[in-house]
Amino acid sequence: MTNHIAKQIHLISRPSGMPSHEHFKLVEVELPAPDAGEVLVKNHYMSVDPYMRGRMRENAVYAEAYALNSVMYGGAVGEVIESADPSLQAGDIVLNGAAWQDKFVAKANTLSKLEPFDPDQLSLYLGTLGMPGLTAYVGLFKFGEPKPGETVFVSAASGAVGANVCQIAKLKGCRVIGSVGSDAKAKWLLDECGVDAVINYKTCGDLTQALADAAPDGVDVYFENVGGDHLQAALNVMNPYGRIAACGMIASYNNAEPAPGPNNLMLIVGKKIRINGFIVSDHGDMRDQFLSEMVPWIQEGKIKSRETVFEGIDNAIDAFLGLFSGENFGKMVVKLD
Amino acid sequence: MTNHIAKQIHLISRPSGMPSHEHFKLVEVELPAPDAGEVLVKNHYMSVDPYMRGRMRENAVYAEAYALNSVMYGGAVGEVIESADPSLQAGDIVLNGAAWQDKFVAKANTLSKLEPFDPDQLSLYLGTLGMPGLTAYVGLFKFGEPKPGETVFVSAASGAVGANVCQIAKLKGCRVIGSVGSDAKAKWLLDECGVDAVINYKTCGDLTQALADAAPDGVDVYFENVGGDHLQAALNVMNPYGRIAACGMIASYNNAEPAPGPNNLMLIVGKKIRINGFIVSDHGDMRDQFLSEMVPWIQEGKIKSRETVFEGIDNAIDAFLGLFSGENFGKMVVKLD
Repeated sequence: MTNHIAKQIHLISRPSGMPSHEHFKLVEVELPAPDAGEVLVKNHYMSVDPYMRGRMRENAVYAEAYALNSVMYGGAVGEVIESADPSLQAGDIVLNGAAWQDKFVAKANTLSKLEPFDPDQLSLYLGTLGMPGLTAYVGLFKFGEPKPGETVFVSAASGAVGANVCQIAKLKGCRVIGSVGSDAKAKWLLDECGVDAVINYKTCGDLTQALADAAPDGVDVYFENVGGDHLQAALNVMNPYGRIAACGMIASYNNAEPAPGPNNLMLIVGKKIRINGFIVSDHGDMRDQFLSEMVPWIQEGKIKSRETVFEGIDNAIDAFLGLFSGENFGKMVVKLD
Repeated sequence: MTNHIAKQIHLISRPSGMPSHEHFKLVEVELPAPDAGEVLVKNHYMSVDPYMRGRMRENAVYAEAYALNSVMYGGAVGEVIESADPSLQAGDIVLNGAAWQDKFVAKANTLSKLEPFDPDQLSLYLGTLGMPGLTAYVGLFKFGEPKPGETVFVSAASGAVGANVCQIAKLKGCRVIGSVGSDAKAKWLLDECGVDAVINYKTCGDLTQALADAAPDGVDVYFENVGGDHLQAALNVMNPYGRIAACGMIASYNNAEPAPGPNNLMLIVGKKIRINGFIVSDHGDMRDQFLSEMVPWIQEGKIKSRETVFEGIDNAIDAFLGLFSGENFGKMVVKLD
């Protein structure tokens, strides 16, 4: 049994505004052989997600802050290479929280063994069948609570979470309006995903007007991924008793200084709106129900997934940074081997 | 039977920023004798409330806009003078929605007959036992949902709604922190109402720091009457899974141009906060429960009420304007005879 060399990405300083390569470092470490109860895993895919930006702050509130000069973490799908635990065998596919490295040793009971419905689509377990997909499902049903025939507005609508919100809401009989930052994304949502109307927020002019035009009956549910102008427009166009599922506000993640919020928050009172901030990790109890609906939808072609795949851990930082420039189309993943 | 002359306040133009006397006009009208099913009422007290400012806008969303060149309306307590309906007799005390006039004729079935627990405290039915009191009760229990031992933060804490929120939350075993704009109001809340800590937002310096100092265990429930800086501070100091009952945002009511909102709305996501805008008129089903708790609390001296009373309908506009300069201490009412 030879020891393995793992490549890891460490956070070496905390970015104030937009992160760049200087804040990160590629480090090679020699892994020990797995002790009893442990396994050695080779990651096939790792996830980069906008929420990771918050973990780079010292005062992270959403999820624990990354420590400096140590490997970051996040979702990944890997394969067991060596096992010193009876619950897992070499060749088993495992969902794990040990991203930002291509190999690692961990206790077997910290990993979730997958029975992939298609071994060629492992990366789906980081997107449509993973945390972003469950986020869409939880946010929509637990907090948005759309009724058939209601109008659902989704920002970052072609993203890893948003595209699932759009398509699930369509399957549940809603009228769906998405906001995206490119015409290619708009076209995909309209042509492939059956979304009813899409706004390109970069070219539409006044966002409130564009949303009002796209939603002649008003907005009943807003799935919030962006914040700022999008929240302001959504409040302007929402119907009384509208619900906002607040999943993220990516517009603010890289602000070095806090930016002012929407100027129309009084509409929360006036329209009797409910807003729920949420984090998917509180709602693991919905995972079985989620997978029982989502896997068949994928197999039947009712839910489409787009991915942007970067190759190799050397490109993981670029993949992460691409989340904030809108370079990704759908779920951004890094293929590690 | 002689006809009566009523004095009414009409809205004659829509204010853009702070309203002033030029937007209103005192008009005398001759009232017809009540037809069958109608009664003639003399109002003893009328209410002025911050929400009325919204009704002066053409695009009111919270409650129907006041029509121009016609009498405004709102809560009042009056006495039946003449009745042409068997359900009411002269001398009956009625809660009505026909404020901004000293006498009026209306259908008997639009009025609520009161059995006042104390005929000398009729104005309480416009405050602690009326719409503001019910607003406090509904917002706190239906949306704030404080548990005993939790910390409740109340803005405009000595106001008609806020003072009731503070005292009800104390009776339910919470730690209560209020924000007010004068030391006299702070003293009353501390000495008479048993509030645990009070911030004078005009003199405290940084509001977030003042709130953090007053709430060493964080804030679990924020009862929002003010908006702006108060909402920002509350979000900063709130605990995970905090609840915001959004009753009003008086800081913005007289803005001619919309002002930017808090710069930290991402905390709604990060702290998994729930915000509910609400209007008391949706929750009339809680009135019986409310009165069954509130009347004994008042009789036992457990709930204190402060009022600022202006005399005469000629002074109703000044009473209303006083709501926005903080001149009122507790519930602002106008005594009409």
